[in-house]
Amino acid sequence: MKNFKSYLFAPLALFAMLFISGNIKAQGVSGDTIANLTDVQKYYRAIHVMAMLLVGFGFLMVFVRKYGRSALTATFLLVSISVPLYYFISDFGIFGEKGSQIDILIMAEFGAASLLITAGAVLGRLKMQQYLILGLLFVPFYMFNEWIMLDEGFGLVGKGNFIDTGGSIVIHAFGAIFGLGVAISMTTKNEYDTSIEADATSDRFSMLGSMILWVFWPSFCAALVLPEEVVMTAINVILALSGATLATGFASIKLRGKIDAADIANASLAGGVAIGSVCNTASPTEAMIIGLAAGAISTFGFAIVQSRLQKGLKIVDTCGVSNLHGIPGIFGGLVALIVVTGINYTAQLAGIGLTIVIAIVAGLITGKILHFFGHREKPYVDTEEFIVED
Amino acid sequence: MKNFKSYLFAPLALFAMLFISGNIKAQGVSGDTIANLTDVQKYYRAIHVMAMLLVGFGFLMVFVRKYGRSALTATFLLVSISVPLYYFISDFGIFGEKGSQIDILIMAEFGAASLLITAGAVLGRLKMQQYLILGLLFVPFYMFNEWIMLDEGFGLVGKGNFIDTGGSIVIHAFGAIFGLGVAISMTTKNEYDTSIEADATSDRFSMLGSMILWVFWPSFCAALVLPEEVVMTAINVILALSGATLATGFASIKLRGKIDAADIANASLAGGVAIGSVCNTASPTEAMIIGLAAGAISTFGFAIVQSRLQKGLKIVDTCGVSNLHGIPGIFGGLVALIVVTGINYTAQLAGIGLTIVIAIVAGLITGKILHFFGHREKPYVDTEEFIVED
Amino acid sequence: MKNFKSYLFAPLALFAMLFISGNIKAQGVSGDTIANLTDVQKYYRAIHVMAMLLVGFGFLMVFVRKYGRSALTATFLLVSISVPLYYFISDFGIFGEKGSQIDILIMAEFGAASLLITAGAVLGRLKMQQYLILGLLFVPFYMFNEWIMLDEGFGLVGKGNFIDTGGSIVIHAFGAIFGLGVAISMTTKNEYDTSIEADATSDRFSMLGSMILWVFWPSFCAALVLPEEVVMTAINVILALSGATLATGFASIKLRGKIDAADIANASLAGGVAIGSVCNTASPTEAMIIGLAAGAISTFGFAIVQSRLQKGLKIVDTCGVSNLHGIPGIFGGLVALIVVTGINYTAQLAGIGLTIVIAIVAGLITGKILHFFGHREKPYVDTEEFIVED
Repeated sequence: MKNFKSYLFAPLALFAMLFISGNIKAQGVSGDTIANLTDVQKYYRAIHVMAMLLVGFGFLMVFVRKYGRSALTATFLLVSISVPLYYFISDFGIFGEKGSQIDILIMAEFGAASLLITAGAVLGRLKMQQYLILGLLFVPFYMFNEWIMLDEGFGLVGKGNFIDTGGSIVIHAFGAIFGLGVAISMTTKNEYDTSIEADATSDRFSMLGSMILWVFWPSFCAALVLPEEVVMTAINVILALSGATLATGFASIKLRGKIDAADIANASLAGGVAIGSVCNTASPTEAMIIGLAAGAISTFGFAIVQSRLQKGLKIVDTCGVSNLHGIPGIFGGLVALIVVTGINYTAQLAGIGLTIVIAIVAGLITGKILHFFGHREKPYVDTEEFIVED
Repeated sequence: MKNFKSYLFAPLALFAMLFISGNIKAQGVSGDTIANLTDVQKYYRAIHVMAMLLVGFGFLMVFVRKYGRSALTATFLLVSISVPLYYFISDFGIFGEKGSQIDILIMAEFGAASLLITAGAVLGRLKMQQYLILGLLFVPFYMFNEWIMLDEGFGLVGKGNFIDTGGSIVIHAFGAIFGLGVAISMTTKNEYDTSIEADATSDRFSMLGSMILWVFWPSFCAALVLPEEVVMTAINVILALSGATLATGFASIKLRGKIDAADIANASLAGGVAIGSVCNTASPTEAMIIGLAAGAISTFGFAIVQSRLQKGLKIVDTCGVSNLHGIPGIFGGLVALIVVTGINYTAQLAGIGLTIVIAIVAGLITGKILHFFGHREKPYVDTEEFIVED
Repeated sequence: MKNFKSYLFAPLALFAMLFISGNIKAQGVSGDTIANLTDVQKYYRAIHVMAMLLVGFGFLMVFVRKYGRSALTATFLLVSISVPLYYFISDFGIFGEKGSQIDILIMAEFGAASLLITAGAVLGRLKMQQYLILGLLFVPFYMFNEWIMLDEGFGLVGKGNFIDTGGSIVIHAFGAIFGLGVAISMTTKNEYDTSIEADATSDRFSMLGSMILWVFWPSFCAALVLPEEVVMTAINVILALSGATLATGFASIKLRGKIDAADIANASLAGGVAIGSVCNTASPTEAMIIGLAAGAISTFGFAIVQSRLQKGLKIVDTCGVSNLHGIPGIFGGLVALIVVTGINYTAQLAGIGLTIVIAIVAGLITGKILHFFGHREKPYVDTEEFIVED
């Protein structure tokens, strides 16, 4: 199983999916002009999210100097396996009704975002086909959790009780914790002995990815909100990101003496992660404060916690997703308890707790399965799997 | 003619154009609010296409290590010559009525896309002013073919009979075959003796261009469709691109042993090329299958056909546009025969055949004319025409 | 004051702002569906402008080879300090009524654009915290000038009399001249003795930023126009940018012998700067001619004027903002006198003159204050303030 045959796993599964799926026919939202216009407007947010997935997440991960081609190719593959998979599974209706076609597309992209976060935790330590298998295993787990949190799933949380508009918990925390689960099952000695190197060019590429994420994050959070909520949601997200960016600048220089470009590229985005749950309910002032706090927390994670975690628990989290998506995500979910008037405390806390449990269990299982498909000889180098001229 | 004077050719032509064109007055689509909103929505797709033209095509061509500044400058110049030229020629009404102002802008961008594909075939082997002359010659030929295929041109195909919504034939195949025609007329010995070198940085830039193209491709195909068709068109394009990306990953490793980053950057996009003709009529399942096939075909072209073509026929196709836009484009045009119910077989086949003939003849003529304006001493280096400090 | 404490200045000011600002509540434009749709459409233009601010301006400034991380971090910080600051100051209503929430966001982004232009003039010669202080000082001055030009400020120009839709004067010229003021107060000997170095990679990054600016410029100029004016405004901007790009190509080779990639990256954008004032009133032909002229003027500035200014007046304008935003901006404001029928000559000339005076005075004052917060040891290197592995 560790050899070439494993490459066939992914396309076979997809083909099976395709042929069972019957034949969804191309269909317009006929007649209603306003409904059409509204759907097309959602479409533009879907494209913004796609820019975040490929260019944003992809280039953010290019900070690993010798692993650029691999990181970008992995991003391509992860998006290309997960979006169709989510889309065709939705068509079966296993995990509840997903709404209109554009809503399904956006939710599929959310799933891809969460998957890319997971992949960030083990970046550089999977073979290319393992990224695909990761995608195939991740999506059903993700949809299962999403169904419990946001839909009728087992009646555990109840529809509409769990507040997480922009996915602080369901997308960010889930992806990060799932990734830690995989990392726990996968990390080997030669991984935490190998240092992850950046250089001036990889840093600039990484900041490009970060900027793309920053710019389009308002559309991520506002992707599915009502038309009349789009503008205020966007303003909240921009204020939260601004707050996080300022806090990151101060915290980085305070905690490290000099600024680390990786802090700026990563922790600045923690504002977007943390505002997720309350992006359409917070006031601008609250949004700014949430962002400032999230940036400080995240930078503290990158500057102080990361290396201790690695040395103490022997877990390598390549991109530090626990600091960017994990802690700030949970923080965002908890902030809803304060900010949202009339919130259902039990449902919110249950949702957060359940997501953490499902993510860690699913991640551990997935890691065990991936382990079965082998390991790279040397982590963080393109040369093992790519044709390299230079 | 080979000297500086040739630089004056382009602006003079443009100025002539401008002053003859009278004075189109700034005008709104007054009154009708819904029509205005719909036009503004098209405008966003026009901007997405512009991102593809400059950032997408531009950076995809940066894979040539020592020719980055030139590739990007050529992209700037080609867009800047062709969009105004198409726009002002449309105003004359030579090649039929083009619709509203935003439709004309989008069609001008389509022409620029096709031109950039052509330029990809001879990239690195033209002087800067020759790119401009190429643009001046290309646009009228392109508009002539477009007029025959999609409009009343000579009554050869007939309006509405030829199915090519996203331009598999009219944009992609036409540009690629035109480019081969130019390459046949232009290629010299010192070109196929000079190897085209990439490195880690040029590869990452190239993948950036590729990702921008991937992300905005749905807007390219959906640019001119009806509002109620936008969402399903976009979903089809995303599924086709996903299919092509997965197929490319598998095919690249299967055919080469290791993955070639250039395959991922290029052949992944073949899904977008091939879905063009039927992007608003295929079912999602069909779209995914078309994408998988296109990715496999395109990778086969890059990995196997390209080098043989170069050695056997002595034609250098710098960016491999025949593998990305040529074959997948024709494949897309032919797929319409199967997918679209009630298609006019004669018109579809005639359209494909005529486009191939017009493109190759026009390309050969254009190549001869360009040949007359001289040749670079050394292909694929910035230093000949650019100030280079490093 | 020159030490760490200065870092506290910015967040304290912001916090004060936040807590005074009361609590703007998240609010939708309830009820009116068309108004909502129109606001969401403006939102997409706001996102395009944000892409210009971070990715566009940010990467355009990465042409300084050893100062990439700093330039990008400074961009992050400048956007993150100025957008919230403008937003919360607007809430006070000091400088007049600013309109709806989305209008305020877009105007805040315009302010950030102007600030980034100012920063370009002294790029590489401020410490990170000084960029923040620059932002804190700049925004009130900018809003003061904006209030006089476009609103009722002192009744000096009068509302609606000054024609500057896309901000040739209020955004571009103001930012550039403010920057020159700062540069005059700040420039030291070791700055004009240190050369600014580019290399192939920094040039390609710079052209990426330039392309992002080019692509989204139509949305910048059309951000606040009426829905029925969006399309023609966009076409005018694209024609002006195309004209400037062509003129830059010709002028660069004519004036320097070879093409300078920095000319292409910068002067091509002068068309967007110059068309600003009349972007929604010019005809396409006029737009193209304005662009051609602006590109030629700007390239002349970069190729001929820049070095003489530096040697003669001992002012270092790092990014050459006077050539890209200063002169072309004033040119754009003056062009309105010819192009716009029924223009109020007195108001237009008074507006231009007043903006120049306010900008230079405010810049000189700001430079003096910044001077007080110290100086970098070595200009244009990341290593002084950033952790650098390579």
